Amino acid sequence: MTEEVRIGPEALGRFVAAIFRAKGMTEADAAQVAEVLIWADLRGVDSHGVVRVPRYLHFIKRGDFDPAGRPRLREISANAFVLDCAHTAGPVAMMQATERAAAAAAQGAVAFGLVNGSTHIGAAGYYVEKAAARGLAAIVLAAGIPNMAYHGARTLGVATAPIAIAVPGPEHPLLLDMATAVAASGKLRQAIEEGRPIPEGWALDEAGNPTTDPAKAAISLPLGGPKGAGLALMFECLTGILAGAAALAPLLGKPGSRHVQNAAIIALDVAQFRPVADFVADVAALQSGIKGLPRLAGVEEILLPGERGRRSAAERRERGIPLARALWDELGRIGAELGVAAPAPPTTR
Amino acid sequence: MTEEVRIGPEALGRFVAAIFRAKGMTEADAAQVAEVLIWADLRGVDSHGVVRVPRYLHFIKRGDFDPAGRPRLREISANAFVLDCAHTAGPVAMMQATERAAAAAAQGAVAFGLVNGSTHIGAAGYYVEKAAARGLAAIVLAAGIPNMAYHGARTLGVATAPIAIAVPGPEHPLLLDMATAVAASGKLRQAIEEGRPIPEGWALDEAGNPTTDPAKAAISLPLGGPKGAGLALMFECLTGILAGAAALAPLLGKPGSRHVQNAAIIALDVAQFRPVADFVADVAALQSGIKGLPRLAGVEEILLPGERGRRSAAERRERGIPLARALWDELGRIGAELGVAAPAPPTTR
Repeated sequence: MTEEVRIGPEALGRFVAAIFRAKGMTEADAAQVAEVLIWADLRGVDSHGVVRVPRYLHFIKRGDFDPAGRPRLREISANAFVLDCAHTAGPVAMMQATERAAAAAAQGAVAFGLVNGSTHIGAAGYYVEKAAARGLAAIVLAAGIPNMAYHGARTLGVATAPIAIAVPGPEHPLLLDMATAVAASGKLRQAIEEGRPIPEGWALDEAGNPTTDPAKAAISLPLGGPKGAGLALMFECLTGILAGAAALAPLLGKPGSRHVQNAAIIALDVAQFRPVADFVADVAALQSGIKGLPRLAGVEEILLPGERGRRSAAERRERGIPLARALWDELGRIGAELGVAAPAPPTTR
Repeated sequence: MTEEVRIGPEALGRFVAAIFRAKGMTEADAAQVAEVLIWADLRGVDSHGVVRVPRYLHFIKRGDFDPAGRPRLREISANAFVLDCAHTAGPVAMMQATERAAAAAAQGAVAFGLVNGSTHIGAAGYYVEKAAARGLAAIVLAAGIPNMAYHGARTLGVATAPIAIAVPGPEHPLLLDMATAVAASGKLRQAIEEGRPIPEGWALDEAGNPTTDPAKAAISLPLGGPKGAGLALMFECLTGILAGAAALAPLLGKPGSRHVQNAAIIALDVAQFRPVADFVADVAALQSGIKGLPRLAGVEEILLPGERGRRSAAERRERGIPLARALWDELGRIGAELGVAAPAPPTTR
């Protein structure tokens, strides 16, 4: 087990935000990026948490992440828009898209927005959860540079394109957030970092051979073969290609390509279809019906989408976010270089 | 190998349409239902083809399929609508939804439609392909009565809810059509009918135990465990629950429930985002990039979504649709009872 430290989410968020401010982001933008990273860490999606900070700084260094970037709005109709981003931080662009989609859906029941050419959007679930908390049903799709094999190929062909869906629920939104890979690329990277063997069917090595050795894992495999690969391919068409900036085709066979991610949000104003309370009552009935189904042998509890993440968040809000000591030290060095003080000495366990 | 006959698609379509006319459908509605079934048969999705005719007639008999049903339009906004169906034939309702979504998207770039309480919509890919052929990017989701296990459960909990996505492409639309089950329920049924063993992980038996014996297979399993189950659950929220007619929760633990299927269509007018020719050029580049990727050992060709189906359609248009002799005989008996003549004697092989 790697040595871990526990850091309170608020203090960690302030620290990370200060790092991004020091790199030239506005206070609001830096706080937004930090909030999306902390959200993922709280929910146990560590691969999308503050572990990304060094990578984001690397993107800034090579010009793939413009800390001063602002999305430029292209209005398509009253209910559809594109935010042209030119390397704007993904969380900044995506929150703007979410706000705008919510406002448009409030008018016309449905809204569709594209984020074109941002950096990594972080956990897609964050945005749909925000939308659902405001009474919307929302879907976010994203796609970017190739980091997964297409079905049948032995090289990178598509992105581990995520889909997140959330709807209003009885106490909190019902939230699904998944990659079209068997395992999210971040989870694969985590296993690599931790030196754990990975299950068969997760990855290929550099030469395109199946492997369970995390040190050799180089290429993620798609969920269910043609299904995951097909979804990832279609998400590229519905995001980058629709927005006018294909991300995949120009990069096939070109490792080390510049980072970019495109995304789409679809928002539906539930109240215009039926009273939200009735919708929520039906979601509640569905949730309790599913939770109460007879279980397979060996299954202790049936979990709803998002349930594990919410439990993790409750625990981590109380006990702090666990970070590998090596990551914590790295963040400390980054802070020191930028003149940003790390939070008070953490508990080591 | 089951004995097969080959029937020309036009003749088979006319025969099937005549059967539905004899059951009280209008000529146009009967032709629409037949067209959707033949489309699936042509593409090799036999599970969604004319094998469904006896089942649809059973639905008519018990009142789950109203041959005279007409969708009732509920306008939500200029770009969103619900078609309340009360057992209208799925293909009739879905084509109306597709037409209306296309018209609304032509105005406002995006449209969202719900089909509420229809019968089986058939192959979801049919509708998005029609939309894409008219310059739309389109997504169809559907969900209905429980016919798949939720992840961790040993009984039916969710539907094998399909998702179909199509976009305009260089010669024909790029089309993905998939179930959220490891295998579409129809494919499972087909294996059962043909007595072939099924792969591990496809199904549980009645008691909720994993099985590869098609005679014992009773419950489909979700694609990728929590991912497929989660998508199916969210599709229920985005279709039946949003439309005001939850399909799942009232039926959990109640086998033999009445058939119903709800669906959603999202349509985007590509031309309002960018010139369709540019969009199509990017899709073409993506397609050829993917086709040209280096292949895994043993893989002869990398296939795009929908490619296998299109090849099957070309072959079957020429040679006819292969039907099991038992099915053909059953259709003949149905025709005879209704005074509908079957096509001229088919070739037996």
